[in-house]
Amino acid sequence: MQRIGIDMMGGDYGITATVVGAWLAYNDTENIKLVLFGDEDYITKEMKRVSYTIDRSVFEYVDCRKNVDTGDDPYYALKELQDSSIMKGLEYLSKGKIDVFCTAGNTGATFLGAIKHIGAIEGISRPALISLIPKGNNKFGILLDVGANANCKPENLLDFAKLGFEYAKKIGIENPRVGLLNIGSEKGKGNTLVKESFDLLEDTPNFIGNIEGGDLLGDKADVYVCDGFTGNILLKFCESLVTKGLPRFDSEQYGGMPILGLNKPVIIGHGKSSTVAIKNMIETAIKNI
Amino acid sequence: MQRIGIDMMGGDYGITATVVGAWLAYNDTENIKLVLFGDEDYITKEMKRVSYTIDRSVFEYVDCRKNVDTGDDPYYALKELQDSSIMKGLEYLSKGKIDVFCTAGNTGATFLGAIKHIGAIEGISRPALISLIPKGNNKFGILLDVGANANCKPENLLDFAKLGFEYAKKIGIENPRVGLLNIGSEKGKGNTLVKESFDLLEDTPNFIGNIEGGDLLGDKADVYVCDGFTGNILLKFCESLVTKGLPRFDSEQYGGMPILGLNKPVIIGHGKSSTVAIKNMIETAIKNI
Repeated sequence: MQRIGIDMMGGDYGITATVVGAWLAYNDTENIKLVLFGDEDYITKEMKRVSYTIDRSVFEYVDCRKNVDTGDDPYYALKELQDSSIMKGLEYLSKGKIDVFCTAGNTGATFLGAIKHIGAIEGISRPALISLIPKGNNKFGILLDVGANANCKPENLLDFAKLGFEYAKKIGIENPRVGLLNIGSEKGKGNTLVKESFDLLEDTPNFIGNIEGGDLLGDKADVYVCDGFTGNILLKFCESLVTKGLPRFDSEQYGGMPILGLNKPVIIGHGKSSTVAIKNMIETAIKNI
Repeated sequence: MQRIGIDMMGGDYGITATVVGAWLAYNDTENIKLVLFGDEDYITKEMKRVSYTIDRSVFEYVDCRKNVDTGDDPYYALKELQDSSIMKGLEYLSKGKIDVFCTAGNTGATFLGAIKHIGAIEGISRPALISLIPKGNNKFGILLDVGANANCKPENLLDFAKLGFEYAKKIGIENPRVGLLNIGSEKGKGNTLVKESFDLLEDTPNFIGNIEGGDLLGDKADVYVCDGFTGNILLKFCESLVTKGLPRFDSEQYGGMPILGLNKPVIIGHGKSSTVAIKNMIETAIKNI
C-alpha cells in the first residue's frame, strides 16, 4: 500500500484546510495510506471541531511540534526547524517511510529541504518548480522554472528543458515541443542569459527555438523554459486572472505540482489552497509516485 | 501649428493601415500639420486605391525610398538605412522640423535611432518603453521597461522608477506609487538585479517596495518597474489575453506609447496596428508634445 505524506500545517489556511482536504482525499481514493505530519493535538481537535464524520484512525500520524511559517527564511527553516512538518516529511521520504510528500507550505523551505534530504537527480544542476498553463481545449503548456531559481545560468535552463520534456511525455504529451521564452522569435534576440541558453538548447530534442509572451496560450510549444524570476511573475499574473473573468487559470483543479529533478517525488501546493485544492494536491501526489 | 511626423511605412500592415489612419486623424483633430514620412509614390497610389475622399494636399510629405523591415537588425538600420522613414523622421525631429514623431515600425531601430538623433535626458542612463496595464474602472498601471532594455543594471531600474513616476503624474495620477516587480513582497527577495535595485529605489519618492505578478491588475501601485526582458514577456502575454475574452487588454485604444527619457517625444505604436490604432497613435503623439 502506497504511503502519502501530507504537511498538515502548511498553506495559508493551515489545518482548517488540510484536515478536511485529507478526509476528502481518503474517501476519494483506494488502497493508500495517508500519513499526516503536524501537531497531532491540533489535528485531532480540528477533526472534532469540524464535527464531520471523520474517522481519525484511518490516518497515520507523525507528531511535529514545530512549524515553518510562510515568511520564514528557507535557510533558517532548514537549520532550526528540523522537527517541523515540512522537514520531518522530507526526512521520512528520504528514508523510504513514505512514497511521496506534499505540502502547501513554505515553497522555498520545501525546495531547500528537498535538495538536502532527497537530492537532485544525477546530472541535473537544479531541480525546478513547474506550473501548467491552461491553453484551452483541455491542453496545457508546462512553464518552468516558476520561482525556485531566481538567478539562473544557461546550464540551469538546459536542465529545465530536459526536465520539462520528460515531464510532458509523462503526462501524455507526445513528442513535446520545447520553446525558450524570449522577447523575440529570432535567434540572437533577448538578454544575455537566453542568448547563451539558446546555443545549449539547440542540441536538445524537439527544441523549436524562441517563443514570446504572446505564444503561451497558443499551440507553438508544449514546454516553456525560463528563469525562475520571469516564470514566477508570469505565474502569479496568470493566477490573478481567475478573478478577472478567466476561471481556467484556477490552480485549484490540480492542487499541486511536483518539483522536477528530485530523486523522490515532492509535490508543492498553492499557499492559498482550499480544502478541495488540498484534496487535489494529494491526488496529484498519488499520480506522481 | 504643431507638426506631427508619421512613419507611413512601419507596422505589419504598412501603408494600407497608415494612409487611412492618417486621414482619420486629420479629420479628428484641428490645427495640426501631419508630415508623412515614406515612399511618396506608394502613398499617393494607396490614397487613390482606397478611393476615399482623401485630400492629399492637406498633408506634407518627406519622400523616403528606403525602409526598415520588422526583422532588420537595429544597428544595421541605424548605419545603412539613414534614408528610411524611421531614421529620416527622427532626424527631422532632432532638427526641430517636426514636434513629435510616431511609428508602428521596428521598435529596436526606432529606439536606437532616437538615442542617436534625439538623445537621452541628462542624468538618465537609458530611455524606456512603457505600456499601460488596464486595471479596470478606467485605471491604469504603468509598466516599464517593456522591451527596449533586455539586460539591465540597478541604475537602469532606478531611472525607470523616476521616469515612470513623472509620466504617471503627467497623465493625471496624483502621488503615483512606485513598485518594484519581484517574486516576493518582502525586502531581500528576488534575483540579484532586483535585490540591488531595491536598495537604490528606497530613496525615490513614493516607493512602496516589492510587488508581485498577482498585483499588476490590483491597486497596490501605479508604476511597475522591471527589466525589459520581464516586461516584454508580460506585455505580450497581456496582449494575447484580448483573444481569450479580456478585451480590455486591447492596445488599440491608445495606439502608441512614448519612449520615456528622450529629449523630444517619440511615440511607438504596436506592430499589428490597424487603421484605428494608427489614428489613435497620432492622437497620442499630439498629447505628448
